[in-house]
Amino acid sequence: MDFSHKHRIGVIGGSSATKGLLRKAEKLGRIIAENGDILVCGGLGGVMEAAARGAKSAGGITIGILPSSDPGTANPYIDFPIATNIGEARNFIIVNTSDALVAIDGKYGTLTEIAAALRLGRTVAGISTWDIPGVRPFETAQEAMDYIYSVLR
Amino acid sequence: MDFSHKHRIGVIGGSSATKGLLRKAEKLGRIIAENGDILVCGGLGGVMEAAARGAKSAGGITIGILPSSDPGTANPYIDFPIATNIGEARNFIIVNTSDALVAIDGKYGTLTEIAAALRLGRTVAGISTWDIPGVRPFETAQEAMDYIYSVLR
Amino acid sequence: MDFSHKHRIGVIGGSSATKGLLRKAEKLGRIIAENGDILVCGGLGGVMEAAARGAKSAGGITIGILPSSDPGTANPYIDFPIATNIGEARNFIIVNTSDALVAIDGKYGTLTEIAAALRLGRTVAGISTWDIPGVRPFETAQEAMDYIYSVLR
Amino acid sequence: MDFSHKHRIGVIGGSSATKGLLRKAEKLGRIIAENGDILVCGGLGGVMEAAARGAKSAGGITIGILPSSDPGTANPYIDFPIATNIGEARNFIIVNTSDALVAIDGKYGTLTEIAAALRLGRTVAGISTWDIPGVRPFETAQEAMDYIYSVLR
Repeated sequence: MDFSHKHRIGVIGGSSATKGLLRKAEKLGRIIAENGDILVCGGLGGVMEAAARGAKSAGGITIGILPSSDPGTANPYIDFPIATNIGEARNFIIVNTSDALVAIDGKYGTLTEIAAALRLGRTVAGISTWDIPGVRPFETAQEAMDYIYSVLR
Repeated sequence: MDFSHKHRIGVIGGSSATKGLLRKAEKLGRIIAENGDILVCGGLGGVMEAAARGAKSAGGITIGILPSSDPGTANPYIDFPIATNIGEARNFIIVNTSDALVAIDGKYGTLTEIAAALRLGRTVAGISTWDIPGVRPFETAQEAMDYIYSVLR
Repeated sequence: MDFSHKHRIGVIGGSSATKGLLRKAEKLGRIIAENGDILVCGGLGGVMEAAARGAKSAGGITIGILPSSDPGTANPYIDFPIATNIGEARNFIIVNTSDALVAIDGKYGTLTEIAAALRLGRTVAGISTWDIPGVRPFETAQEAMDYIYSVLR
Repeated sequence: MDFSHKHRIGVIGGSSATKGLLRKAEKLGRIIAENGDILVCGGLGGVMEAAARGAKSAGGITIGILPSSDPGTANPYIDFPIATNIGEARNFIIVNTSDALVAIDGKYGTLTEIAAALRLGRTVAGISTWDIPGVRPFETAQEAMDYIYSVLR
């Protein structure tokens, strides 16, 4: 298995969300996997779990960068749990590790990730999330990912 | 010296700003010191240095939570440099350590701090900074600090 | 691909070592891969690179937990670079993420990892490394991995 | 108050110790304060608390670099709690922030600090602690501090 030319796409968002948004998160994960790329997320529930479930349903690979010291706190769709034990500061690791990110929904925690990503110059697509200059808003998972890939390629 | 009943007030903002805003940052530091409280900041230049200079000019105490591993990178007005070596993730330490915060100006880095502070339920006053729900905007340093102290007391 | 029942084995050691020890590090990586398990390391050169090269030569999977913010600093045998930007403190993330570890050679940096691993109760095998109570010393990579697997199973 | 020419001395050791060693830790803190210097420690109980109590008893200043996100977890003798929320990885911040360190007693956690300090080239004095090349062993707090000051000056 050679992963050297694969993109790492971050999907960020809260640990709870409406059914509609969780479906979009799942779709994001599926598209990332179908493109042969790697999902990076925070490894917990809600948007993170939906995206990871989507990626695994399409045979993809998932990395979960956890706030705690316990890999067992990852959701069941995480292939590679990274147990940082640095709490919310792990948001910066998610951003550093991702080539580009999609933010979906989310509260203040997601805003720290969006801001960190924009600070680093990462491309950020948004779905029903914070309206911050630099975040490109989209309706559907497909549109968001089309944008991400148009920039990465 | 007994510091046990003193507040730790965070002043957050970018490493460069207009003269007018730097004057306000300096005023913030002075007011914090005049109240016998402790300034917490990121320890570098711009808003951080102006606030620390203001605090020292009024005989106050300043803590600088640095991104690097080198205490020598602190600005000259920092009494206690904390050399975290965790980069921008040190923004979370500034927030955890502060009882309340004033954001002044700032770009995406400051937005990570604002979001982290609001996530923790900290009171955040803003001067010419990001318009985020939860940040109370003010014109002057005095007004911002009056608000901070009205909440802390 | 289902990685849920795979072990994550950490290989820790310095960024330079003798040819003989690098050969042993490479062997460690190969054995981990042949067992279908995942190599976790610090992602840089020396022992880390040799172990990752060994794992890839046997079709394994490698995670590199980097000190910097740049995934591009990983050695060429790392599948999944994690860009922590927390400097040497990333040693704790390597340890938290690994089910068991092998230390090979190494200076003070490796000692921080050994100590962190023992503190967490992780099994630690050692090859030509620090003589610390709790580290079980071995001559060969095979012996070290036999011990690791005798404990994990 | 001008703290710019003061040394920051780290005292590291476990959260429990014998009465005899706690007395020595307290003495270390007292000597640091009597020299007009600043105590840096992990902010919790045992050796950390004893050293801080000693420093405060002599009118000194104490910084506690905490593993948790809650400044309220500091022992009562800490003037400036730094709430890192990065767990044991905060040990690296203690070391980066200190000009020199004394290790007293301690288990694996203290060993991570000793190793991190030696890696950075910091002077480390030891009292009844790990026998690691680079740690200079002493019987009494006075001897350890005499050594520290002979190097710092």
